[in-house]
Amino acid sequence: DHFIICGFGEVGKETAEELNRHKIPFVIVDLSLSEGDRARFSDYVMIEGDASEEEILEQAKIMKARGLISCLPEDPQNVFTVLTARQMNSNLQIVSRASLKRTVLKLKKAGANRVITPKAIAGKQLATVSIKPEVMHFLETISSGESDAIHIEACTLEKGSGLIGKSLRESNIGQYTGAVVIGILNAQGVLRSNQTNRSTISTIELEEGDILMAMGSEEQHKSLLNFSREK
Amino acid sequence: DHFIICGFGEVGKETAEELNRHKIPFVIVDLSLSEGDRARFSDYVMIEGDASEEEILEQAKIMKARGLISCLPEDPQNVFTVLTARQMNSNLQIVSRASLKRTVLKLKKAGANRVITPKAIAGKQLATVSIKPEVMHFLETISSGESDAIHIEACTLEKGSGLIGKSLRESNIGQYTGAVVIGILNAQGVLRSNQTNRSTISTIELEEGDILMAMGSEEQHKSLLNFSREK
Ligand SMILES: [Ca+2]
Ligand SMILES: [Ca+2]
Repeated sequence: DHFIICGFGEVGKETAEELNRHKIPFVIVDLSLSEGDRARFSDYVMIEGDASEEEILEQAKIMKARGLISCLPEDPQNVFTVLTARQMNSNLQIVSRASLKRTVLKLKKAGANRVITPKAIAGKQLATVSIKPEVMHFLETISSGESDAIHIEACTLEKGSGLIGKSLRESNIGQYTGAVVIGILNAQGVLRSNQTNRSTISTIELEEGDILMAMGSEEQHKSLLNFSREK
Repeated sequence: DHFIICGFGEVGKETAEELNRHKIPFVIVDLSLSEGDRARFSDYVMIEGDASEEEILEQAKIMKARGLISCLPEDPQNVFTVLTARQMNSNLQIVSRASLKRTVLKLKKAGANRVITPKAIAGKQLATVSIKPEVMHFLETISSGESDAIHIEACTLEKGSGLIGKSLRESNIGQYTGAVVIGILNAQGVLRSNQTNRSTISTIELEEGDILMAMGSEEQHKSLLNFSREK
């Protein structure tokens, strides 16, 4: 149930740090690990080798992995790694970095579920932080890695949940759990909204498979999960 | 009330596109604009020159600008540009790209209000999209640039607002405006929360200067703004 991080440059280091913060296990694969990095990150599991080679991915236990994150510096390296990984494990969650926007489609065809383009997201963030600094600050606050902080979690309504058929207003989620539901995605991942502009999401009738996007502390999210499982 | 975008590489282009989507005026400054870019972006205002030179920033009307966004490829160029801009206009909102993490502090000392590091945010996003794909999808949906979509806006409670002294529950914001308040920042930008885990933000007593972070359509945000200004 671990992740494989391919590439341990600046992007790979940041990815590892974030997984580490969430206490999620991972293995790093890099073609050439420096002595400095080995010493500085001695508590990380590292394999030196080419991540696009099957035997290296076998060493990283790809068949048992939950996901692979390809963040190699050159796009062709990412394409090859994604191709190899996808051939070996068809159920793996694969995400990849793309240095150039025009590689995004190639990476998806190679088998990546999601692709992140650093320069594109940087441009978006530079614009957002300029025109809506408070919104940006808020989004950063709630998506920060600190576990005691208020953050967003997803809570899926499984079959039999007592919340199905109720609206948020009727459910009293806030009162019982302290978590605040800020959005509802349907099972296909589409944001649910009311037809009319005057009514809020609090009157939408919840359905099986709906994903409640909630804000709260770790404890409040646990409380919501339990609450959603009551019949 | 315009923005000055310094650098028209990949990051600069993405920044310009995002400002354009929000119909916010901007001027581009780049040392060397290609004929291809001039033709492709013929509706953009462009100045060819060194953004760290006073006379170029004067041409870009820095004294009348709302903000400057420095997204040059090399960090020393960004530092020089930020320094020049800050000397010329002490009130300007300045944000900058930093290619390397170790330049962030230098850029802030030079006068940048906010600094964005593309590789660092890419690493964070690769991790988040791997471990919480629904949350990532939701954040992307609500921060997308489409104006008819549900998105987050900030609404500051000015002196005299009828909401001051009330809680969200008492205010009936949802019922009157359709917008959903998902967080409250105080005037210092700190997330407000209740002491106890069991209670929600809906019982916090609103104060002057509080910033309501609300989700809704363009129309719902306008409605909330008007509602917040009622005595
Ligand atoms: Ca080595
Ligand atoms: Ca030229």
